[in-house]
Amino acid sequence: MNETFKALADPTRRQIIALLKERDMTAGDIAEHFNISKPSISHHLNLLKQANIILDQRQGQFIYYSLNATVFQELISWFMQLGNFGGKEGD
Amino acid sequence: MNETFKALADPTRRQIIALLKERDMTAGDIAEHFNISKPSISHHLNLLKQANIILDQRQGQFIYYSLNATVFQELISWFMQLGNFGGKEGD
Repeated sequence: MNETFKALADPTRRQIIALLKERDMTAGDIAEHFNISKPSISHHLNLLKQANIILDQRQGQFIYYSLNATVFQELISWFMQLGNFGGKEGD
Repeated sequence: MNETFKALADPTRRQIIALLKERDMTAGDIAEHFNISKPSISHHLNLLKQANIILDQRQGQFIYYSLNATVFQELISWFMQLGNFGGKEGD
C-alpha cells in the first residue's frame, strides 16, 4: 500500500493512469502526451509498475502498458470499508 | 491530491484513519493504540490534517479528530472514474 500511494502522489503518474484508462499504450504513445523526456516517462512507468498499478505485456517488438484493475479494486475496497462513503447518503 | 496520497503512504497514518473510522478521538486516545511517542503521533496527525484527510474540532479542553468524509468520497470517485471497477463484472 505504501508503494501504491507513493506512486499515486504525482500528477504526471496520475495523468499516465488516466491515459491508460482509455487504452493500452506503449511508452512512446504515452510520451507523446507529455512535454517531458522519454527517460523521465520510463522512470514514471517503472514506479507505476513496481507499485503494481500498471502491467506490461510484450506484443511483438512493443511493450504495452495497461492498468491493473485488481489494484484499483483493492484501493476502492479499502476506501469503502472506511465508512459508508460509497453507498449511502445521510449522516 | 499529491498531499493526500503522500499522507496515505504510511502505515501508521492508515492505522490512525482506521481508528478514526470507529469514532472521533483526541490525540491522547489515538496515542494509546501505538507504541510510538506522542510527538510522533502529533506529527502524523498534522500531516493528515494538512492533507485534509482528517478534521479537528475543539470540544471544551480537548481537540477531537475525525475523518473528512468528503475527501474519501472524492478519492473513491477518482478511482471509480478510472474504469467500471466499482460496479461491473465482466472482462
